[in-house]
Amino acid sequence: MPISKNQIKLITSLQQKKYRVKEGLFVAEGIKVVNEFLNSEIELQTLFCVDEVLGDYKNYACVSITENELKKISVLKSPNKVLGLFKIPSEKTSQDNGLKVVLDTINDPGNLGTIIRLCDWFGVKELICSKDTVDCYNTKVVQSTMGSLTRVVVKYVDLIPYLKDTQQPVYITDMEGENVYAATLPENGIIIMGNEANGVSSEIKQLISRKLTIPRFGELQATESLNVATATAILLNEFRRATGKLK
Amino acid sequence: MPISKNQIKLITSLQQKKYRVKEGLFVAEGIKVVNEFLNSEIELQTLFCVDEVLGDYKNYACVSITENELKKISVLKSPNKVLGLFKIPSEKTSQDNGLKVVLDTINDPGNLGTIIRLCDWFGVKELICSKDTVDCYNTKVVQSTMGSLTRVVVKYVDLIPYLKDTQQPVYITDMEGENVYAATLPENGIIIMGNEANGVSSEIKQLISRKLTIPRFGELQATESLNVATATAILLNEFRRATGKLK
Repeated sequence: MPISKNQIKLITSLQQKKYRVKEGLFVAEGIKVVNEFLNSEIELQTLFCVDEVLGDYKNYACVSITENELKKISVLKSPNKVLGLFKIPSEKTSQDNGLKVVLDTINDPGNLGTIIRLCDWFGVKELICSKDTVDCYNTKVVQSTMGSLTRVVVKYVDLIPYLKDTQQPVYITDMEGENVYAATLPENGIIIMGNEANGVSSEIKQLISRKLTIPRFGELQATESLNVATATAILLNEFRRATGKLK
Repeated sequence: MPISKNQIKLITSLQQKKYRVKEGLFVAEGIKVVNEFLNSEIELQTLFCVDEVLGDYKNYACVSITENELKKISVLKSPNKVLGLFKIPSEKTSQDNGLKVVLDTINDPGNLGTIIRLCDWFGVKELICSKDTVDCYNTKVVQSTMGSLTRVVVKYVDLIPYLKDTQQPVYITDMEGENVYAATLPENGIIIMGNEANGVSSEIKQLISRKLTIPRFGELQATESLNVATATAILLNEFRRATGKLK
């Protein structure tokens, strides 16, 4: 079965969020990333393969495509054999326990992808995003998570009521906070990370009493800030290291 | 003095490394990044400004350009008022002390930029790169360092003789290494970070006896790896935290 014009149109339309929402579908590309989704709970809608790998995907009703057709529908510089349309899963109900990351208006798909990967590494099962944070089914995000999106639940909520409701301790980073190396951090809690340019919004800052500082070592003290993904890496590392010594 | 055709040609040629090497020049863009370089030891060759900000740069012999001309010579999506040509500084001699990061074949400009920023934050004064690591005067690297490139010395060397010569303890990350949370880490030493896809090359691995593991917390243990920049963030944090409790 060859690819149809309508399918090509559908796939390229899914680069825009409004069509992903309308169709309930997102795109994953390349053998590694597609296989991660095929081996997850996420449901496949259609799989497109070049002939060379049709045998590897014989358990799926593959649509056969040429390398040229793949180039047309791919957003990758070097398309990699296979492209899948998957169904966006329905949002799971939130658990009020465990270590969690909350993102306030993250705009860069690469940053979101890196943070999803970090959550996966550090055993954070839920990532809570403000409604204006970049969509986790954005193709760039999907590709940069390297499959971590199949293991981390990403939810989009109104942050103010969410944070007002939670019983968990909530932390933000702040230049005037407690030294994160000296702080006693709980096993469970919520870490809020803010927008790339503006940090955590002032409305949310007012709700939070626990402030942490990552010490800066450069003599000139001129480095303005850490990238939000690297700051998230350092904080998750700090929250986990107390229990992680035993591993 | 308006911009000349030759200047436009020169600036766009500097997107390629061979012309940066030939001319001994690199490009920095936008008010924030350009100001960081103007306030550093790095020497200005020519500054191009739109009229709106000419007054802010009256101490420099600015070439006046229109917004349209700036768009032509800029690599940014949203060009920001000013573009500077700066002289690539001569390489400083290496110091065999202090905490250092060594990069083995890092390809992605964004990763190199993030790592330069991390070095700046954590007071790492020297970043040693294999000769095939992406050029630090690549425009994408320059822009993503947010000025940290003015404070961190980046050197390109043959890693094998460099690592054979050093008297400092040298560390790599490895899944079979010592738990980094339990390890006693020195204040000074060398941390080697490897290529995005292949890690540290086997030739270098053979030289190194000190191996560190960043523990993984996800239950499925399926996360393949951390991005090289986030792994660098976690390691630098671990090396600094012993001394950083007091800050």
